[in-house]
Amino acid sequence: MEAIPVSASLVIIGNEVLSGRTKDANLAYLGAQLAEMGIRMMEVRIVPDIEDRIIEAVKALSARYTYVFTTGGIGPTHDDITAACIAKAFDVRLIRHPEAMRVLAAHYAASGAEFNDARKKMAEVPEGAVLVDNPVSKAPGFRIANVYVFAGIPRVMQAMFESIRHELTKGAPIESRTVSCRLGEGTLAAGLGAVQQRYADIDIGSYPYFVAGGFGVSLVLRGTDTDRLQQAADEVRALIRDLGGEPLEGEPQRDAPQPAA
Amino acid sequence: MEAIPVSASLVIIGNEVLSGRTKDANLAYLGAQLAEMGIRMMEVRIVPDIEDRIIEAVKALSARYTYVFTTGGIGPTHDDITAACIAKAFDVRLIRHPEAMRVLAAHYAASGAEFNDARKKMAEVPEGAVLVDNPVSKAPGFRIANVYVFAGIPRVMQAMFESIRHELTKGAPIESRTVSCRLGEGTLAAGLGAVQQRYADIDIGSYPYFVAGGFGVSLVLRGTDTDRLQQAADEVRALIRDLGGEPLEGEPQRDAPQPAA
Repeated sequence: MEAIPVSASLVIIGNEVLSGRTKDANLAYLGAQLAEMGIRMMEVRIVPDIEDRIIEAVKALSARYTYVFTTGGIGPTHDDITAACIAKAFDVRLIRHPEAMRVLAAHYAASGAEFNDARKKMAEVPEGAVLVDNPVSKAPGFRIANVYVFAGIPRVMQAMFESIRHELTKGAPIESRTVSCRLGEGTLAAGLGAVQQRYADIDIGSYPYFVAGGFGVSLVLRGTDTDRLQQAADEVRALIRDLGGEPLEGEPQRDAPQPAA
Repeated sequence: MEAIPVSASLVIIGNEVLSGRTKDANLAYLGAQLAEMGIRMMEVRIVPDIEDRIIEAVKALSARYTYVFTTGGIGPTHDDITAACIAKAFDVRLIRHPEAMRVLAAHYAASGAEFNDARKKMAEVPEGAVLVDNPVSKAPGFRIANVYVFAGIPRVMQAMFESIRHELTKGAPIESRTVSCRLGEGTLAAGLGAVQQRYADIDIGSYPYFVAGGFGVSLVLRGTDTDRLQQAADEVRALIRDLGGEPLEGEPQRDAPQPAA
């Protein structure tokens, strides 16, 4: 199968992530899930709850990548402005989606909570948007053009992703191989660069680490052609042996990371 | 003291962070440290090890915010291209910095490792850049204009930040108050929005959570005026009581987060 380049990007919306108080957990999930589907995460922007910043990020990434995912800012409170910003980014009206109203009305009728104006805000989407099902807490996400708008709470975001993953165009699955060793990066660099030059289709990254027994480096190879990936990994193993090291498969237990250049 | 608006941004460089395999730990550190100094983190971009993407992000953020910090991509291997990209972003030559050469030569002489070309790459900086000391592993970071270039490894990044923090222009310290309760966001939203309207200088965020005993929401207030912050927090507490809830100070132990709209 021919490899189709399918790319993704992510806009993480929220002052709490920017301030460092809340750690984002959605990139790790999305990055891994998409890689399995052959979709490469190419850029992430974390922006505050400010209209201009959200609109700018969504427009820039929507024009550049196959998909944009956004997380955060779709709840009932004043700081939840994502849907309104996406409507402005696409220059369409914000409307109350009839199906979202129906789902939410039934949900609050069952729970006994009042279906007030704040909660009705969660039914607002840009005109023309398609709802994304939220099996966890009912309030839906949506898609407009190539932009998927998800909740920020990881469990809900993951459920929303699961409900749309079948829609996504797949690329050739991106596989990886990790070879570690106890050599310094500066010792490996020249030979590693030469391997990278011979395998332009394989992405080779070098990541130093520190373990109780000393320092080392993990070499991560990524690509869509299993044979080429295996060949490149074999060359990296041979390089390590040539330099007097011992290639270790996978990634060792890490301690406090420390450079070993 | 008059509040000076001082802003910051961060460019996280690295395929490994984008793929979700490596979790960034630098935003959490920088966001918290800068907030204490009254410097607000306004935007983060995570970009791959691709020249155009790095250059674009650095130029965009350098023009917009008081400071740009970058993390990652300053080691000796082929995938470490940050210094070269920053030189291109500022349209200056990449040079071997004499003091960086001296520090690294002494370091490798002492360790017995060869000071080879790959390791000499770690002395390369854009012409006109000022070195940033690296007490952990010697290879320096640098600053050019309003851009600080740091290592990606958290321990090294933090040491680099410590060595330059005295240079940064401080703003009025940003304080926060957190009030939690067991009410749903949809119940609080109207009253909370009204408090936000009365306190335009206070940033009020609403973050739902799920604990073993049920759901709840943390309301985080941020601002530079302690009195106003206290008044706004008191109004939020009063709102919670008016709605039949009980204001809890700080943030409760969290379980798997779940929305409570």
